[in-house]
Amino acid sequence: MSAPAPLPLSGVRVIDLTRILSGPFCSMILGDLGAEVVKIETPGGDPVRKQGHRVEGLSWYFAGFNRNKSSVELDLRNPEGVAVLERLLAGADILTENFRPGILDRMGLTEERLRQINPELIVVSVNGYGSDGPYADRPAFDFIAQAMSGYMATNGTPDTGPLRTAPPITDVVAGLYAALGAVAALRGRENGGPAQRVEASMMMSMMSMLAYLTSNALATGRDPVPTGNDHPIASPYGLFRASDGDIAVAPSTDRIVEKFLGELGLGHLLTDPRFASNEVRLRHRAELNALINEALAHDTQEGWITRLNAAGVPSGRVQSVTEALADPQVAAQDMVLRVPHEGRGEVGMIGFPVKFSKTPLQVRHPTPELGAGGRDALRTAGFDEAEIDALVAARRAGRRNHLRRCRNRAPQP
Amino acid sequence: MSAPAPLPLSGVRVIDLTRILSGPFCSMILGDLGAEVVKIETPGGDPVRKQGHRVEGLSWYFAGFNRNKSSVELDLRNPEGVAVLERLLAGADILTENFRPGILDRMGLTEERLRQINPELIVVSVNGYGSDGPYADRPAFDFIAQAMSGYMATNGTPDTGPLRTAPPITDVVAGLYAALGAVAALRGRENGGPAQRVEASMMMSMMSMLAYLTSNALATGRDPVPTGNDHPIASPYGLFRASDGDIAVAPSTDRIVEKFLGELGLGHLLTDPRFASNEVRLRHRAELNALINEALAHDTQEGWITRLNAAGVPSGRVQSVTEALADPQVAAQDMVLRVPHEGRGEVGMIGFPVKFSKTPLQVRHPTPELGAGGRDALRTAGFDEAEIDALVAARRAGRRNHLRRCRNRAPQP
Repeated sequence: MSAPAPLPLSGVRVIDLTRILSGPFCSMILGDLGAEVVKIETPGGDPVRKQGHRVEGLSWYFAGFNRNKSSVELDLRNPEGVAVLERLLAGADILTENFRPGILDRMGLTEERLRQINPELIVVSVNGYGSDGPYADRPAFDFIAQAMSGYMATNGTPDTGPLRTAPPITDVVAGLYAALGAVAALRGRENGGPAQRVEASMMMSMMSMLAYLTSNALATGRDPVPTGNDHPIASPYGLFRASDGDIAVAPSTDRIVEKFLGELGLGHLLTDPRFASNEVRLRHRAELNALINEALAHDTQEGWITRLNAAGVPSGRVQSVTEALADPQVAAQDMVLRVPHEGRGEVGMIGFPVKFSKTPLQVRHPTPELGAGGRDALRTAGFDEAEIDALVAARRAGRRNHLRRCRNRAPQP
Repeated sequence: MSAPAPLPLSGVRVIDLTRILSGPFCSMILGDLGAEVVKIETPGGDPVRKQGHRVEGLSWYFAGFNRNKSSVELDLRNPEGVAVLERLLAGADILTENFRPGILDRMGLTEERLRQINPELIVVSVNGYGSDGPYADRPAFDFIAQAMSGYMATNGTPDTGPLRTAPPITDVVAGLYAALGAVAALRGRENGGPAQRVEASMMMSMMSMLAYLTSNALATGRDPVPTGNDHPIASPYGLFRASDGDIAVAPSTDRIVEKFLGELGLGHLLTDPRFASNEVRLRHRAELNALINEALAHDTQEGWITRLNAAGVPSGRVQSVTEALADPQVAAQDMVLRVPHEGRGEVGMIGFPVKFSKTPLQVRHPTPELGAGGRDALRTAGFDEAEIDALVAARRAGRRNHLRRCRNRAPQP
């Protein structure tokens, strides 16, 4: 029997200073892809350990963004902590961080110092607005990045005005771009390119996701008009009413509109002057939708969705989050994992959205308890057992002091 | 003078069969990172060439997703076209495609055939639902993936019900994941791992972006409640009213709430029993918001945003798309490029959201006209001049026939 094929980032060592969401998402992706990720946590740990719903004391939000990492607790506000970090960095390929620009410098980890420690180190930063420009020093937050990027203004209806989306989309998009940048920079370095800094910001990442909305705004100088669930330039399109609930239908070309209306027994409408082209259909959207809803009343969501998709007409249900999590396609794609965590039970988390045919990704390490796996990480970095014992003892003492200090300022959920 | 440092994906050859949006976004990212991308277009070209707003005959939507590629026009419905494609694939590192699962097989490019042509080839697929499972054969469309993934149900207010977001977010998120998978698989192959298939789907990619909404739904079995621009578990948070317009404010901890209210001269409210903790503030949100709006009326958006950010309180304007494109931070980050295109003028497009300190990304090739750059691509793949001339002549003849056939079925915008 041969050894299993190595994962894409097998052998890559990441030292991870990130906390909360955008950065931990980036470093988790690197860990999922096979890198060994050492999460450095300041005393008390990543604040997300105390956020979101907890089961047997463990935040499933934290667990969902910190699998495939080990944890080392280090106080980076004192020089001993930074000295340990520097030794870890000496043997690493990648440093990930999501501080505000400038904080790494203030720790003494300037670009020059990092080059001294490890000239081959790739430094990956995730931040709010980028490290140059008038807003570089502003604190980052998803809601604000949604607002500033133009994204919020494209959402909602004429009645609601600009609407945020509930998921912290700018955090995760920036984290995903940063992971891409990290892997690309690594590949470049391994093929004759330089070790370098890589950066992704929440506002700029989100702007790159607006697709034709930015293209058209650049071309015309005009803003898109919020149209809710109606497509601004296609009809029929949107939510329609089957006998037992709504279905979403999105025919993207005239040929697919023809198939859609044909399946409904409404093919004749295409010779009606009100509905003969997309242009006239846009003006008679309400009338057409009423006729479609009348026809759809004769069968269920499930019936129509099966039939329309078989005919090549994209359609589906509007699922709630729990419905989506229970969807048979989601099961077939292994997108909900149940991962045993010692003393915390089986933790539910989202699986791997990128599939590799020969090296399927796995949860190789469950989400670490604060400090868990740290001994191994320190050993790998060349610390001897006595040094590790001293660090662990110092951390325990520090934790007692920290708990005393924190008793009266519990973080907000 | 030394030669410029190579880009991260320098020397990598991508043969790109994708069309429309998710796949072309993936292959453009690979091109932006330095790969040589050859876009194979069926006669008539990618339908997006005729979509979106056109300036001097060129779709800026198409231009924004197809820079850093060359174009070869090939009819893949006939065996001669597929034979040319196979010769191109023999020298490539990566094949990108976003057909429905099974279409590549129907062209004769089964997994086995591809292995014969090039055992080192990485095949990257973007699709709607993944290539296994009950929905594998369904046609993909962004609106449907938003609906099925649970994403739509988290958007909107209790009044609007589930709302799509206007940008085709599931297309671009899947394309971004596929690009990450492509680069990771390449890095793996170059370090002793196998050449393999990589896949990202729109529905599964989007589910992975729901962050704590899925974590909490898995932990509790309950769905998130749509709350519009209010944060479900934080107050104050949201849109507030300065003298000349709204500002978005998102204080994420008690300490930042204290700073926010302090800057407004409302620090005393934190001793008021209605506002003393986040928990009671959630119950008195409307009263607190009214007091905040009263205080904000004394200065402008700009004044408050500068002052609040300086105090560490994340805040910003809700910008329209055109406002965001004209934002000084966006200019400082080079996020709007003006790229000369021969005969088409300067084309506006979004810049590079990932920054590399030593190998800044560039538009090395403007968006190709149909067939442009194809001669070079064919030459690189080993075609001689006579073969290339024959292909170009055949393509011209085919184009005339195609135009005759298409005259009466213009695609929908």
